[in-house]
Amino acid sequence: MLADGNITTILDLIGTFAFAISGIRLASGKDIDWFGAYIVGLVTAIGGGTTRDLLLGVTPFWMLDSKYFITTAVALGVTLLFKNRIFRWGHTLFLFDAIGLGLFTIVGISKGLDAGLPFWVCIVLGGVTGTVGGVFRDVLINEVPLLFRRDIYAVASIVGGMLYFLCYQLQLSAFISELAAALTVILVRIVAVKFHIHLPILKSIDAKNE
Amino acid sequence: MLADGNITTILDLIGTFAFAISGIRLASGKDIDWFGAYIVGLVTAIGGGTTRDLLLGVTPFWMLDSKYFITTAVALGVTLLFKNRIFRWGHTLFLFDAIGLGLFTIVGISKGLDAGLPFWVCIVLGGVTGTVGGVFRDVLINEVPLLFRRDIYAVASIVGGMLYFLCYQLQLSAFISELAAALTVILVRIVAVKFHIHLPILKSIDAKNE
Amino acid sequence: MLADGNITTILDLIGTFAFAISGIRLASGKDIDWFGAYIVGLVTAIGGGTTRDLLLGVTPFWMLDSKYFITTAVALGVTLLFKNRIFRWGHTLFLFDAIGLGLFTIVGISKGLDAGLPFWVCIVLGGVTGTVGGVFRDVLINEVPLLFRRDIYAVASIVGGMLYFLCYQLQLSAFISELAAALTVILVRIVAVKFHIHLPILKSIDAKNE
Repeated sequence: MLADGNITTILDLIGTFAFAISGIRLASGKDIDWFGAYIVGLVTAIGGGTTRDLLLGVTPFWMLDSKYFITTAVALGVTLLFKNRIFRWGHTLFLFDAIGLGLFTIVGISKGLDAGLPFWVCIVLGGVTGTVGGVFRDVLINEVPLLFRRDIYAVASIVGGMLYFLCYQLQLSAFISELAAALTVILVRIVAVKFHIHLPILKSIDAKNE
Repeated sequence: MLADGNITTILDLIGTFAFAISGIRLASGKDIDWFGAYIVGLVTAIGGGTTRDLLLGVTPFWMLDSKYFITTAVALGVTLLFKNRIFRWGHTLFLFDAIGLGLFTIVGISKGLDAGLPFWVCIVLGGVTGTVGGVFRDVLINEVPLLFRRDIYAVASIVGGMLYFLCYQLQLSAFISELAAALTVILVRIVAVKFHIHLPILKSIDAKNE
Repeated sequence: MLADGNITTILDLIGTFAFAISGIRLASGKDIDWFGAYIVGLVTAIGGGTTRDLLLGVTPFWMLDSKYFITTAVALGVTLLFKNRIFRWGHTLFLFDAIGLGLFTIVGISKGLDAGLPFWVCIVLGGVTGTVGGVFRDVLINEVPLLFRRDIYAVASIVGGMLYFLCYQLQLSAFISELAAALTVILVRIVAVKFHIHLPILKSIDAKNE
């Protein structure tokens, strides 16, 4: 699995850091204290993988390694220290977040394959790993999940998952498949944001005549 | 178990379809895109059963059969095609939803009995299977769950569950018990809505002097 | 484990009762019916322990003993009977809630130790057991969780957990460790509220330049 090497440990931590920052950032201005901000950041970073592990019936990944809790603490510290500056890093953070989405997707798919699940379930687990943390974040801060309103996000994860499937069918090595799929997720995400590609909004319907 | 025959497969799909439509419908007008609407519909349809399976510690049912994801896609397609018309089907959709509640309740109870749990836990699992999807839907679209505010809904599920228990004590066959319980849920629901039967509202209390 | 004796059964029920009351109380004035209020109370009381048990991959504790459902029903009955009076018991309820937090924290840590998990994970599980029910309550009634905004709450649980760890390192008996930790949680909570000790709020940051 891609997540074995040193490079992927670093990418994994970058993804965790970016997801934690996105939680802490959206928690600010909601009258939330430092500890609450830490929790929102943590849930954003580990919520997707935890949901995946519960669905798979395995021990949640963060119980086996404290680095996710520590990375979130670092993210909170960095935010407190560089508050005004860090959010001008818009582009960098966006890239981190896209890397997180790509990597988390791949980790989810790999765990599904390891469990011997059909490929469509693995793609779903990839999407769950990449996006559910952000949904939890938005529910906690009492917003309609951004996921549902934002340019191509979960869809990027699914497109990457499908490419993984294609590579798998072509019997490419796991490493190549994972690399190709992660890059696809990241690219789809970047292209969608750069060119403002959106899915159509589901227009309001009169839901009163039940 | 009731869910083995062809008839119940059809009823199961009808319930899934109705629950998915109710999610998609309430997502409309919330600035949610098509994919987001699909997810809200899906969570509405499979959220209850997934929670039940997690509580039971078994593999979530939808991982074993893609028909729930496909049915939700059909529900989205139908909504997009017949948008203005479909929501005039108020009565039909209400009936579908009641059938879904009845059937999902029975499936939940059966799974609990299969796991050898006491009957009161089975009734709770029936209620969880029938109602938690709707609660997730309302949390995702950022509303106080309808369940808590609406005429006899979860209660219909529990009344059906109790009748199941009665049939069980009388040693009636599983088929008869399940049929009677499902019909009871559906009837209680229809009667409650037709005659505007509500539970009393819990009046506002000064919650400030903590 | 502390939760074996008669005294702790009573403390456990007091904690459950207090958590249920806090759910029912916050549900009032939200246009929620009696049954809905029961569910909000129940989720507040058992949500934390259920999450802990799902993370641990064990059967949720309430499936094995109906007393939590019954205690919540008693809490609802008491609320309906003494509505105006019960909420003047502010101080008593606050103490009950603090006892609940302390005891639930210890139960969570004990279950983690029984599962052979590292101590930091046990402290997390203690915090989850003590606080997640309240988070579910706030999500259900569509508020930003109080936990994130309130004086030292989850932090009290964590301080108690750390003291437990210290006692454990000093090889004190389980009984002494649990007692000391529970009392610490309760004391920290009382002191924080009495002297208005808060964590700093994370100030609003411009989160627009994504």
